Order: sequence, then structure tokens, then C-alpha cells
Amino acid sequence: MKKMEVLKQIAFEEKGFDGFLILNWANLLYFTGFPGAVSLLIPRDGESIVYVYGVNYEQAKAEGKGFRVELVKRDENLIAKIAEKAKDYKIKKLAVDALSIEGWRALAKETRGETKLKVKGNFIWELRKVKDEKEIELMRKAGELTSEGMKAAYEVLKPGMKEYEVAAEIEYAMRKRGSYGTAFETAVSSGPRSAFPHGGCSDRELREGDLVVVDAGATYKFYRSDMTRTLVAGQPLEKQKKLYEIVKAAQEKAFEAIKPNVKAKNVDAVARKIIEDAGYGEYFVHGLGHGVGLEVHEPPTLSSSSKEMLAAGNVVTDEPGIYLVGYGGVRIEDTVLVQKNGAKKLTKGPYSLGAE
Amino acid sequence: MKKMEVLKQIAFEEKGFDGFLILNWANLLYFTGFPGAVSLLIPRDGESIVYVYGVNYEQAKAEGKGFRVELVKRDENLIAKIAEKAKDYKIKKLAVDALSIEGWRALAKETRGETKLKVKGNFIWELRKVKDEKEIELMRKAGELTSEGMKAAYEVLKPGMKEYEVAAEIEYAMRKRGSYGTAFETAVSSGPRSAFPHGGCSDRELREGDLVVVDAGATYKFYRSDMTRTLVAGQPLEKQKKLYEIVKAAQEKAFEAIKPNVKAKNVDAVARKIIEDAGYGEYFVHGLGHGVGLEVHEPPTLSSSSKEMLAAGNVVTDEPGIYLVGYGGVRIEDTVLVQKNGAKKLTKGPYSLGAE
Repeated sequence: MKKMEVLKQIAFEEKGFDGFLILNWANLLYFTGFPGAVSLLIPRDGESIVYVYGVNYEQAKAEGKGFRVELVKRDENLIAKIAEKAKDYKIKKLAVDALSIEGWRALAKETRGETKLKVKGNFIWELRKVKDEKEIELMRKAGELTSEGMKAAYEVLKPGMKEYEVAAEIEYAMRKRGSYGTAFETAVSSGPRSAFPHGGCSDRELREGDLVVVDAGATYKFYRSDMTRTLVAGQPLEKQKKLYEIVKAAQEKAFEAIKPNVKAKNVDAVARKIIEDAGYGEYFVHGLGHGVGLEVHEPPTLSSSSKEMLAAGNVVTDEPGIYLVGYGGVRIEDTVLVQKNGAKKLTKGPYSLGAE
Repeated sequence: MKKMEVLKQIAFEEKGFDGFLILNWANLLYFTGFPGAVSLLIPRDGESIVYVYGVNYEQAKAEGKGFRVELVKRDENLIAKIAEKAKDYKIKKLAVDALSIEGWRALAKETRGETKLKVKGNFIWELRKVKDEKEIELMRKAGELTSEGMKAAYEVLKPGMKEYEVAAEIEYAMRKRGSYGTAFETAVSSGPRSAFPHGGCSDRELREGDLVVVDAGATYKFYRSDMTRTLVAGQPLEKQKKLYEIVKAAQEKAFEAIKPNVKAKNVDAVARKIIEDAGYGEYFVHGLGHGVGLEVHEPPTLSSSSKEMLAAGNVVTDEPGIYLVGYGGVRIEDTVLVQKNGAKKLTKGPYSLGAE
């Protein structure tokens, strides 16, 4: 597996570890391609081992490639099993991606000081942040499905519908075209609720003139997408149009600023300045965006405090917003691929408050 | 808040702690009722504090009840903030529900030995395992929605459909009736794929005579449900019917054994014996069931190694299965509420291989 080879290069050749233990679910998915592994032990020398419970054993053997599948029986101590294997493999310095305090103590106890442990999740983020061709293809497909879901929102949304009824149509449109599920809980936040950036869905009925923030994402073969449009149920008012144009300009200019070797915080600043200049700076209460991949929020973050530098292969969101408590909110978001010479949107849809 | 009072009783009065720090997402939801908190500090004496980032601040203030909402600014050190507050509250012995090794080290550093830390997630599980009336009402609703989804599967499933197309109909039926989303990734695993207990959905087309394991769950106001039926695309064969009857008997007899003060492993044994006696013991590759609530897999577990004793208010699954690799699988599952005098199914649907 190519990804595992890159990890070995970084962790073993450059950083001097001689083993890597993966426990985080998304990292496991990244390296195994299979959902259901509980752990992956990658030695410097020897075969990598994926640990699975009985319920997933046959599927792992059928679908897993490039490693040995080992069954963890009910009542078996997984950590002890791993520690013993680390000893067999003569691993002296073991990097671990993520561990609870109890897991850490158990592993330290079982390895009895013969294996030095260090938490090193950042090596894997360096890999996961830069999507390869195959991942980009899956994210492109997830973006297409998401755009179809948003199209359904523009088609059906009208006063009298409940928030969750709009969500049902969006999700159905994505799912019947091949989405593996929602990338996160679909949000259809209407009226005053649209001022909550994470308002989710309720059984509130849309009223004429409501701002409605619709935030949805499809998943395709474990890769996610993320897209927001703001609509008005019925006819938009002048103030709503004005807010919309500000956010739209911020989103557009930020998109134009996305390219390799640009500081993530500078892209945030482009959008933030436009919203600040319009007098709404304090109502843009979150960062401009975040990375997307196997998880819906992952590095690199685009915010004023981000230390990241964008690189080709990053997939990030561009999602400025203005949230007026008691009134409503506007957010516009696309999932964007950073490419060699700029950026490309993976989600597509109208920049408008509703079907014309 | 009643739940918080019970936790205080256990942790402070009985176990001698004088503060509790909640960091796990589901525990936060359990105590705050609000999705978006990053941490909850409960002191023995004084007001409980919910920490939220700016993106969720207004919503927490609007929807959160029974605690003070404190904003964590970008770039602020959350752990340092909590440690300082623990000092203000004179917390000497702080219980924590769950912590990564890095979180533990940071908290230990910031509290400088003035606050003794101990991970104590089990206190909260003792609470969460026993659902109160309000929770049961939400789970009943989640079960109803799930049953509607399964009904849709019986109505639409036929040869020629893709697995994900069946999932689309199930999810749409649940969502448009008010489900907040899927409780887990809907599985429609057909043909040889039905032999994988966690087969999920693919783009495989159902063929005449395929066994199809359909595993779905709705979520209602954060509470989940879990249900499986096995169908045949087209007409079932004799062997399929025979397997089905064995699993059905196991599921039914296990259900009859579910009541308070019964060992969870004994309920597992009831189902397992029926499958073993029929000669398929080695193909029942997982435990009988698991608790359900805010998470789809939670205590109490019903398996041969479970140490749990069932109690009124537990909500558990009853889901025996037989999985023949290369041939197919059969599983039947309901979500079941343990009541004073027995048990009650929260999911309902036909016990049949297809629409008659």
C-alpha cells in the first residue's frame, strides 16, 4: 500500500521509530480501506497486522488487502496481544496515533518498558491532509451527490414545510444516486434558528420570508463533502438580499485566494475583511473553513489562528457567514480542492436565495 | 437537572469527589441536552459550567438549561481555563469521564498537583444505562420511526434494485416522518455480502433468491433505535426458510428471557443454545445484543462474557444471527425495553422473509 509506505518513510526512516500503532477509526479506515478494524500494527520489518473482532473477521479477510488479519476473541486482551507482537517484532520505539489515558497505561504496563511509546498523530495528518488521485475521485463524486441534494432543496423548499421534511428530500436525492449516507447531520435551520451556525433540523415549519440555512453533505465510499446554501422561504426582503451579497462576495473572494503556498489564515482574512468592512465582523462567529476527507472536520483549518500553509491536494471548505441573533443567518459554503494552479469547487449550486 | 443531581449523589456523596469534568460528546449531550458543548464542569459547591466555542455560544445560551454557559475563544487554552476554575471552586478530587493521554497530561500540568484527577466514566454509565421516562418516550418514538423505515424495505425490495436504493427508501420513510437522521449507517447487505454482519451498503444489484440483511435505525432528538430484518429478493428457498426459523426461534426465546435481575449472559445463552442445537453455533459470530440510547452501542452488552445484570429501564437489542460465508446470512433484531415485569419491543415489524 502506497500510503503505508509513505508513513513508514516518515516514521521509520526520518523519525527513527520502528513501529506504528494505529487506533483511531479514521486512520484505520485510511490505511486499511476497511471499516471494522480495531487496530493496525505496522512494524519496520515484517508484515503489518490488522486486528478485528469476530463480527468483522470474514469481511476483513475478504476486503482487506496488504496486511495480515488477526482475530481478537471475546475476552482476549487486545492491548496485551499487541504488546506481545511488538516484542516479537523487536519494536523498541513505537509511535501511536491516539490513545486514551487508560489505553496508554495498559499499553505501558503490557510492554513493561521494553517498548518506548510516543503519541504521534501528526505524521498521519500530514498524509491525510493531502489527498491522492483516488481520494480526489471519491471526493469529487461525494461533491456531485451533495450538489444533487442541494438542488432538491432549491426545488422543494417553500413556506409550510417542516425543516426535517426539507432534509428528507435532500438526503433522498443524495442517497438514491449512490451516497453512502450523510457526511454529518443535515441542517435545515429556519427563521431565528438560522442564526445558530450549528442549528441542525427541528420540526419548525417554514414561514414566508424566513431565512433558511441548508447545510448538507453526502458520503461516497467513506469520503465526505460539505455544502451550505441559504434560501428564503418565499420572497426575500431587501435586508436579506444585502446580507446575502456580502457573504457571497466574501465567499467568492476567499475562493479566489485559495491556492498552494498561501497561508490558511490569509484566506480567512480575505473573507473576514469583506464582512468587517460591511459592518458585520462581530457576527462572523467562526473560522472560514476546515479540511474535509474521511472526517467532515479535519486539518487544515482556515481561521485567523491557523498555522497551516495550503498545498495542492488539500480539500477545504470556504464558508463565511453572518449570524444575527433573533433575526437570522446567512452562510454560503463549498467544498474546494486546492490544485497546482489554484482551486476547484467540488460542490456546485446556485448562489441565490431561492429558485427564480 | 435531575440527572446531574444523581451524578452528584454518586460521585460526591458516595465516592468522595468534589468535582466532575465531562468531556465525552454523548455524556455532554446527556447532561446538557445540547449538542455543541466541549466540556462541562460540575463542582460539588457552586454553579456548573458548560464550555462552548463561539460557533455554538448563542445556541447554548438559548437552549441550555441549568448551568452557566462560558465562551471559549479561539486561541484560548480550554484545559487551562478549566484548571483555573477547578482551583476557584476548590476542587481537590476531580473525576473525569474520559480523557486522551495528551489531555490528561495537559490537565495534570495545569492543575499543578493541586487537584487530584481520576478517570471515572463508569459512574455515568450506571446512569445512562437506565433510561428515565422522558428518554423512554424518545426511544419509543425512534423505534416507531425505525419500524416505518423497515416497512418501506418490505414494500420496495425486489430483484434488480441496488442495495443503496433500498437504503434510500428506508431512510426517506424515517426522515419524512420526523427522524433526525440515521442512528448508524443503514445496511442493506445482499447475497454473499449478507454473511458479513457489518456489510453496510454497496451498489450491488439484488438478484432473485438473494438473502438481504437490512439493518436500520432512526434517531429522534438524539436517541437512537436499531432494527434488523432479513428478506429474500423474490422467492425464498427451503434452506433459507430453515435458517430463518432457527434465528426467529432464538430471537423470540431470548426476548422472553429479558427481564430485570436476569444476567445478560444468560439471555445470550438462551439464543445461543437454540442456534447451537440446530448445528450453527459457530456461525453466530457475535454477542446477542447491546444497549442503545444516545449511542447505538452502549452498555449493557448481552454476550457470553457480559458481567451485566439487566434492570428496568435498560434498552437493549436482541439480535441473533447465522452467517454462512460464501452463502449468506440471517439476522433478526429488535430494540427492547426492559420493564418491571418483563420486556417490551420498541421496534415492530413482520418476522418474515418478505411481503407475502
